[in-house]
Amino acid sequence: MRIALDAMGSDICPVPDVEGAILAAREYGETILIVGDEKLIKPEIAKYDSTGLKIEIVHAAEAISMDDKPGVVGKSKPNSSMHVGMNLVKSKDADAFVTAGNTGAAMTIATLFTLRRIEKVKRPALSSIIRVMNGRTIIMLDIGANTDSKPEWLLQFALMGQIYAQKALGLQNPKVALLSNGEEETKGSQLIHDATEIIRASKLNFIGNIEPRDMLEGNADVIVSDGFVGNIAIKTLEAMGSTLFKLIRSEIKSDPIATVGGLLAQRAFRRVYKQVDPFEIGGAPLLGVDGVVIIGHGRSNAKAIKNAIGQARMAVKGEVIQSISKGLKDFPE
Amino acid sequence: MRIALDAMGSDICPVPDVEGAILAAREYGETILIVGDEKLIKPEIAKYDSTGLKIEIVHAAEAISMDDKPGVVGKSKPNSSMHVGMNLVKSKDADAFVTAGNTGAAMTIATLFTLRRIEKVKRPALSSIIRVMNGRTIIMLDIGANTDSKPEWLLQFALMGQIYAQKALGLQNPKVALLSNGEEETKGSQLIHDATEIIRASKLNFIGNIEPRDMLEGNADVIVSDGFVGNIAIKTLEAMGSTLFKLIRSEIKSDPIATVGGLLAQRAFRRVYKQVDPFEIGGAPLLGVDGVVIIGHGRSNAKAIKNAIGQARMAVKGEVIQSISKGLKDFPE
Repeated sequence: MRIALDAMGSDICPVPDVEGAILAAREYGETILIVGDEKLIKPEIAKYDSTGLKIEIVHAAEAISMDDKPGVVGKSKPNSSMHVGMNLVKSKDADAFVTAGNTGAAMTIATLFTLRRIEKVKRPALSSIIRVMNGRTIIMLDIGANTDSKPEWLLQFALMGQIYAQKALGLQNPKVALLSNGEEETKGSQLIHDATEIIRASKLNFIGNIEPRDMLEGNADVIVSDGFVGNIAIKTLEAMGSTLFKLIRSEIKSDPIATVGGLLAQRAFRRVYKQVDPFEIGGAPLLGVDGVVIIGHGRSNAKAIKNAIGQARMAVKGEVIQSISKGLKDFPE
Repeated sequence: MRIALDAMGSDICPVPDVEGAILAAREYGETILIVGDEKLIKPEIAKYDSTGLKIEIVHAAEAISMDDKPGVVGKSKPNSSMHVGMNLVKSKDADAFVTAGNTGAAMTIATLFTLRRIEKVKRPALSSIIRVMNGRTIIMLDIGANTDSKPEWLLQFALMGQIYAQKALGLQNPKVALLSNGEEETKGSQLIHDATEIIRASKLNFIGNIEPRDMLEGNADVIVSDGFVGNIAIKTLEAMGSTLFKLIRSEIKSDPIATVGGLLAQRAFRRVYKQVDPFEIGGAPLLGVDGVVIIGHGRSNAKAIKNAIGQARMAVKGEVIQSISKGLKDFPE
């Protein structure tokens, strides 16, 4: 398997990106194509012992920054590492592309300039993969690609999410739910009502509407929402998590006895943190484009990059793209 | 001041409700009218020393349960403690009504059967008052009364929230923001774009769009959203908070050294918990109905009930209803 990695993705690229590529090549034994400015990449690789690792550099003359406007870069930077990396997937020179860069740019370049949509896909969706109670892993989508979604888009998100959960996350018969303000079918917005109707009529394993609490309990595996709502939900989760950790740290530090207690409990805290740390997952797929694209956080460290490459590997092994393509063919319009 | 309290509200009513009324009468020195089944209320009051407290019982023959359908109880239980309590406010025999009961029922009974809307209010909104970083207190609305809101409803929510923040929460020149998936005006749903335009054109102290993280940092005081989105945001906050506390407790318990650490850090944890504990706030107003109505959580304990009564007291002192009524008169349609 050959996985292309955007060396110019993370906020402090190419440092964690290249280190993550080395870690991934070592852990998974796959070929990693490091895409970006070779003058910057070579000295980074030289920092590590890469003997025996399958690493190749693919030069890309341009790089997209977090400040670049997604609507512009598709045309203005045609030689960006994103263009080059995604075109490697398109030409079958790579099986997947991983980036911790500008999410909007990655979406635009994938959807409109390189890979384009899988046939019959109405709208690609951004996803997030999170760990919930009991160590379960779930996928949420859309978390930001589309606002003001139509019911039939949510139906496709549900299908793509169910396939990803099954094929890439390895969940048996994953349960699909719509994120709503209550379980009862009287709850929800008009979009939720309309989407409930068509998803219920499909062959998907749909369990109905779910509230955030039940989502975190792991009562469903695929959480479907409009991108505006999903984005607010995922950002609220992240914000509340980091706020609480910040509060706990500051209160423990403000009191000498608690400081000793905090040190003794440190390993327990680390285990908790590991469960909620997004870097343990690394990234999640942009679903609906015709190739595996995994997007990680701009703040990714090397571990996050390595794990995002691991996500890509599972998606390729699970033949997610082929399954989505086939799933959509059997699907009502 | 006379505050009516629903004795039949909380999940295990009237126990915490009556105890909360006693605590409130003692702390605030105001008259508390305990509304509900007097056969159940009297023995509860008798458990406490209420010498010198201004407590009155107002009998109500019916009670609304959490399972009662909000659309039905308005007519089917006309003598419920909610009807009786809100009618006390309507007839000026009480200055405010507080309940930890069925939120949907309270909304329906207030809006359609007793207090009704303040003139010119398009839709009443449910709110939530939360503590954020640096001990700031903010108000979010709507958190569930209205789905598929129109821009002009959000404009009114913004007005009502700004008045409440100023008059009842005592914030100086409170800042109003729309909850969105990004600060940039290109982000957001169609509703956010349309609402941004009309709120920006108003005289409100509008700072634009805000993401969940900045909300928790306390960068705005009044967070305005559609009820569907606000409900998911507030429920995600609560769910993430309780999930993290649960994870921390279980990891600390699973390890003897961490258990000792946890005990030493206990006071620090309590301080953190106190900052995020919704029972420290107790309840939040249903804004837009013609009288102060504070709604608390069904799981309220006595402290939460007492604090909800405290909220009501601040709203009455701040003359919130009069200010909203006046504010709307000066407001564009």
